[in-house]
Amino acid sequence: MRANALPTHNDALAELAELLGDRFSTGEAIREQHSHDESWHHAELPHAVVFPETTEEVAQVVTICARHGTPVIPFGTGTSLEGQVVAVEGGVSVDMMRMNRVIEVNAEDLDATVEAGVTRKQLNEYLRDQGLFFPVDPGADASLGGMAATRSSGTNAVRYGTMREAVLSLTVVTADGRIVRTAQRARKSSAGYDLTCLFVGSEGTLGVITEVTVRLFGIPEAISAATVSFSDIGAAVDAVIMTIQSGIPMARIELLDELQVEAINAYSKLDNPVAPTLFLEFHGTQAGVAEQAELVGGICSEFGAGDFRWTSNHEERNKLWQARHDAAWASKALRPGCSMWVTDVCVPISRLAECIVETKKDLETTDIPAPLVGHVGDGNFHLAFLLDRDDPAELAEAERINDRLVNRALAMGGTCTGEHGVGLGKMKFLQAEHGEAVSLMRQLKAAFDPQGIMNPGKIVAV
Amino acid sequence: MRANALPTHNDALAELAELLGDRFSTGEAIREQHSHDESWHHAELPHAVVFPETTEEVAQVVTICARHGTPVIPFGTGTSLEGQVVAVEGGVSVDMMRMNRVIEVNAEDLDATVEAGVTRKQLNEYLRDQGLFFPVDPGADASLGGMAATRSSGTNAVRYGTMREAVLSLTVVTADGRIVRTAQRARKSSAGYDLTCLFVGSEGTLGVITEVTVRLFGIPEAISAATVSFSDIGAAVDAVIMTIQSGIPMARIELLDELQVEAINAYSKLDNPVAPTLFLEFHGTQAGVAEQAELVGGICSEFGAGDFRWTSNHEERNKLWQARHDAAWASKALRPGCSMWVTDVCVPISRLAECIVETKKDLETTDIPAPLVGHVGDGNFHLAFLLDRDDPAELAEAERINDRLVNRALAMGGTCTGEHGVGLGKMKFLQAEHGEAVSLMRQLKAAFDPQGIMNPGKIVAV
Repeated sequence: MRANALPTHNDALAELAELLGDRFSTGEAIREQHSHDESWHHAELPHAVVFPETTEEVAQVVTICARHGTPVIPFGTGTSLEGQVVAVEGGVSVDMMRMNRVIEVNAEDLDATVEAGVTRKQLNEYLRDQGLFFPVDPGADASLGGMAATRSSGTNAVRYGTMREAVLSLTVVTADGRIVRTAQRARKSSAGYDLTCLFVGSEGTLGVITEVTVRLFGIPEAISAATVSFSDIGAAVDAVIMTIQSGIPMARIELLDELQVEAINAYSKLDNPVAPTLFLEFHGTQAGVAEQAELVGGICSEFGAGDFRWTSNHEERNKLWQARHDAAWASKALRPGCSMWVTDVCVPISRLAECIVETKKDLETTDIPAPLVGHVGDGNFHLAFLLDRDDPAELAEAERINDRLVNRALAMGGTCTGEHGVGLGKMKFLQAEHGEAVSLMRQLKAAFDPQGIMNPGKIVAV
Repeated sequence: MRANALPTHNDALAELAELLGDRFSTGEAIREQHSHDESWHHAELPHAVVFPETTEEVAQVVTICARHGTPVIPFGTGTSLEGQVVAVEGGVSVDMMRMNRVIEVNAEDLDATVEAGVTRKQLNEYLRDQGLFFPVDPGADASLGGMAATRSSGTNAVRYGTMREAVLSLTVVTADGRIVRTAQRARKSSAGYDLTCLFVGSEGTLGVITEVTVRLFGIPEAISAATVSFSDIGAAVDAVIMTIQSGIPMARIELLDELQVEAINAYSKLDNPVAPTLFLEFHGTQAGVAEQAELVGGICSEFGAGDFRWTSNHEERNKLWQARHDAAWASKALRPGCSMWVTDVCVPISRLAECIVETKKDLETTDIPAPLVGHVGDGNFHLAFLLDRDDPAELAEAERINDRLVNRALAMGGTCTGEHGVGLGKMKFLQAEHGEAVSLMRQLKAAFDPQGIMNPGKIVAV
């Protein structure tokens, strides 16, 4: 932890303490809690943590930090996976979780505006009585601000889109402390540059997101789910590709490899056959859902699937998806005391089977267990290396396989991250993925944050 | 036409002439053709027109222009509606229509990469044999580059999204002549700033789009269409709102007011009742389409609709949508020799009925005919003022009603343009819509085009 080798930022801290009183902290435990996310990346302490309660307070905080050249690191639930919240140059961690009010739900317009600290489960709880839901569901119960900042997605993206599509508008505090609303609430607009999309995925490096307006959806009339296993992972992916290409409007289509199935069977007390398995969900009318399930069942049979276990029972369905969302914890339980290095890539779906099969071959060359799970309808999948973070040999081994995975995805026209973001972990691949476009990203960063105080050391090095 | 009052740019023109030979022109007729779009905005001549055939040639053109501070105005089909291609400071119009190759169709991945001059009809013609289609359909047979540049949409956006959602990646020539690819082909990515979205809707002010990668869709198994008329326009819109809120996956849901119906009846030889009318389209399986039509038919009845005329006949359906796409020409025929001032706004759908009803009241106060037509499923609608452009009183009158329309939409949380873009016509509303965000747009423009040569005088004044 290098914070004590950095500038002290004492003047900024004194001003912040005066502004926020007991919502300013330099306590060791609080700084430690804000020094890391859920990833394998090493922690770095911020100098202080602040807990603003309004957009105006965030603007005041940033204004003070800007005056003193003090780094500003927005912090939500701390569940990012590539070190996005690590205070690599120290500075002030801005904990957004006291900004947790649902500001407005426009049921008729199917949108909601919330403060950045509202979590996805909190929002869905709030919406349930109105028959509405917010579909984007990363594994963690993340904050909407953090989800917007990392352009996250989850199991529903194949049908409902990612945060790119879900966010209608943002309120942002810029690097010089201005408050900006990026768009109105209209469903579409051609009125100027798309600032909303620019801040979605910017990981706190261009400004602090303080409010998020998102699209909502009506809870479907009918929902059913299914599981189906395959003797061969390539066949499972081929069934997915055929399903997507047939235009069946899947709500969820998730792949778990045999190791991941073993993990969730143990963790969530399930009895799935230990084999590459698809978890599926269908949304629509009663008739529509039955029709979709029949079509997909037929496709899976063509690819040699085992039993197609179908259910429209609410409780069974919830159990299934809870198990899927707990996949990370289930994996971790496979190697007690391990750290988890979770990586993700996304490729054009035509290359998905090849990419997964080659990755599985790589995994045969290592002793590090690494369950594979994916939002395969999007071409997106994850590996979770279960390793001893203090063992340099294991870290090097995970790095080797991760490098090969990312380079394989890039060679296939894919991306180094489908939904986890760049953070610290994917910076080294950005040039290979984007080439000259990285220089434009640098121009953007320099234009919006000329002092380089906004979450420095992430996405692009300036 | 002020071009002769501007710098001559003789050195740049000489270099371009040498580079491009007979694909460089200063001929009066060609310059005139590139001095205007289809809008009411006054024409301004470029100094010259160039016809590049490759991205590299575009980069060379921009490099020469950048060296001499010569404006660069990208030009596609010239069908923009807010003066986007008018050479307000002279300069070089870059006609992209010789870049009209379909580069690659990845049927399995449901995407295609085309040069910027490929038009939407050309692409769909190319795709038809593969059972695929590209859904975004502005009225004109516009180029994909132009459609990306204006963030255009059309009748299918309610189901398939606008160019914001349709574009996966772009090749762009920057203001200093670099060639940049904004993203790979993966369906989703969190790998850095969203440069794709940044250039979509930038109207040539940040760079020249030379290639476009778009999402495709499978042609649905079943398509059916319907028309239904209402005695009252508010009731028609209320039926739309209820349909959208019910989550029925409409493919198209278009409103025409009684004047627009009169116009298309005359122009396209149809016999629709002269009353506010919805044109609807349903995509899905045979069963799904029938189910959707029944649901929507029921909703329309509740709101007092007349006959629900339903058809799955291919020829009838084409006739219907051709008439809809010809609405602008039909309108123009209502007042022979007129110019058309087409404006568009978009509001949250809960305010749509109110917005349209108030707008119709405004139209009762003027003698200028102005048919109303809209992609009402998105909350987006258009007015087409049929006026004598040389009559200052008529221009002032249209301006008065347009100002009231836009301010009404903004007050309802809407936008000054849903799909036509800012160009020259909507610049004056940008501050009212975006407030402080306009200063961020200026920062962006200054960062990407410090000399201000890219389509100057559009979107934001720097």
